[in-house]
Amino acid sequence: MVHYKLIYFNLRGRGELARLILHHQEVAFEDFRFEREEWTKYKTGTPFGQVPVLEVDGKPLAQSNAIARYLARQHGLAGQNEWEQSQADMYVDCIYDLISGTRPIIHESDKEKQKEILQKFLKETVNPHLEKLEQQLIKNGTGFLVGKSITWADLAYYSFFSPMTERFGDSVMDNSPHLKKLVEHVANIPQIKKYVETRPKTTL
Amino acid sequence: MVHYKLIYFNLRGRGELARLILHHQEVAFEDFRFEREEWTKYKTGTPFGQVPVLEVDGKPLAQSNAIARYLARQHGLAGQNEWEQSQADMYVDCIYDLISGTRPIIHESDKEKQKEILQKFLKETVNPHLEKLEQQLIKNGTGFLVGKSITWADLAYYSFFSPMTERFGDSVMDNSPHLKKLVEHVANIPQIKKYVETRPKTTL
Repeated sequence: MVHYKLIYFNLRGRGELARLILHHQEVAFEDFRFEREEWTKYKTGTPFGQVPVLEVDGKPLAQSNAIARYLARQHGLAGQNEWEQSQADMYVDCIYDLISGTRPIIHESDKEKQKEILQKFLKETVNPHLEKLEQQLIKNGTGFLVGKSITWADLAYYSFFSPMTERFGDSVMDNSPHLKKLVEHVANIPQIKKYVETRPKTTL
Repeated sequence: MVHYKLIYFNLRGRGELARLILHHQEVAFEDFRFEREEWTKYKTGTPFGQVPVLEVDGKPLAQSNAIARYLARQHGLAGQNEWEQSQADMYVDCIYDLISGTRPIIHESDKEKQKEILQKFLKETVNPHLEKLEQQLIKNGTGFLVGKSITWADLAYYSFFSPMTERFGDSVMDNSPHLKKLVEHVANIPQIKKYVETRPKTTL
C-alpha cells in the first residue's frame, strides 16, 4: 500500500481539497500539519518553497491542484472519461482563481476596509461566476457539476463555499439554489461529515 | 477528425500554451482571435465570462490550463504515466502562478513604478523559483522538466520565459543555465520556430 504524507499548515486553505478527496474515498494518509511559526523549518525541503506537498512513498509532489488531481485520478474522483476529467479540471481552476481572489480580504486587518473589499469581490467576481455556474448545474441536471456522479470538482466547490458562508453568512449562495443544494449534499456525505466534525478547528 | 476552435484575444497571454501544444504536435485548429474592443461581443457566450475557450466539435471548455492539459493528453504531450503527468501539472501550475504575478507589472502605467514592481517580483518570486527549478532540472538530468522527452510543461516554461526575456532582457535567466538551455531548445524546434515567426506580433 502506498504511503501518502500530506504536508501543510494547520489550516484548510490550499491543503483541504486533497484531505477531502482522501477522506471521501476513505484512503489512509498522514495528515502532517504544522503551525505558522514552524514554517521556516519545513520550507527548504519543499520542491518550490511552498506547501502543500504530497509525499507518495517519499516522492514529493507540489502545487495544491496537481496534488488533488493526482489523488482524484488514483482514487476514482476525477471523472469518467477524458472530457469529464477536463470539465472537472475547469471547475477546479475556477475555484483556484476564487481562492486567489480572497487573499486581499484575508490580509486586510481593518474591519471596515475588509467589508468593502469583500463586497467588491462578491459583486464583481463571485456573483457573476455563480450566475454562470447555476446555468451549468441546471444544464447538467444531475445535481453534480460533471457527469452523473460526484467528482473532486464538487468537493472543491464545497471546500470553497462552505467556509465562505461560515465567515460571511448564508446569503453568499442566495441566488444559487443549485450550488447550495450541492454544497449541502457534500456536507452530508457521512465520510465528509465525520471528518469535518473531528478535524482541527482553524480560522482559514 | 475533431474540430478545435480556440477562442482568445489577439494576444499570447493565457491562450498561447494551447496554441504551442497544437503547433508542436502539428494538429490543425481554428485560431480564433479577436481584439479587445470586440470582447463584449464574445463574453456572454463563454462558460464563465472568460477566455480562452476551446470548442471541441462545438462543445466548450474554459480555463487555460484545463484546455492545455486536455490537448496535451489527447496529443501525447502530457507525460508517460500518471506520476509524470502530475509532475507536468505541478510545473504548469507554477507558471500559472508566475503569470498571475506579472499582472500588477503589466497594469502599471508609470514606467518608474513598473520597474520597481518588476524588480520586487524578480527578487521575491521569480528568482527563488528558478533556484529550485535548476535543482529539479539537474536532478532529472534529461534536459526536460519531466521524464525523458518533451511535455507541455516545457512548452509552458518556454511560453513564460521567452516573452519575459523579450521584455526585460536576457539577465532574467542568468543564474538558470539549465532553464535557459531548455527555453532555447524549445525555441529551435522547427514547428515552434515556424509558428513563432508567422504568428501575429502582439505586445502580450
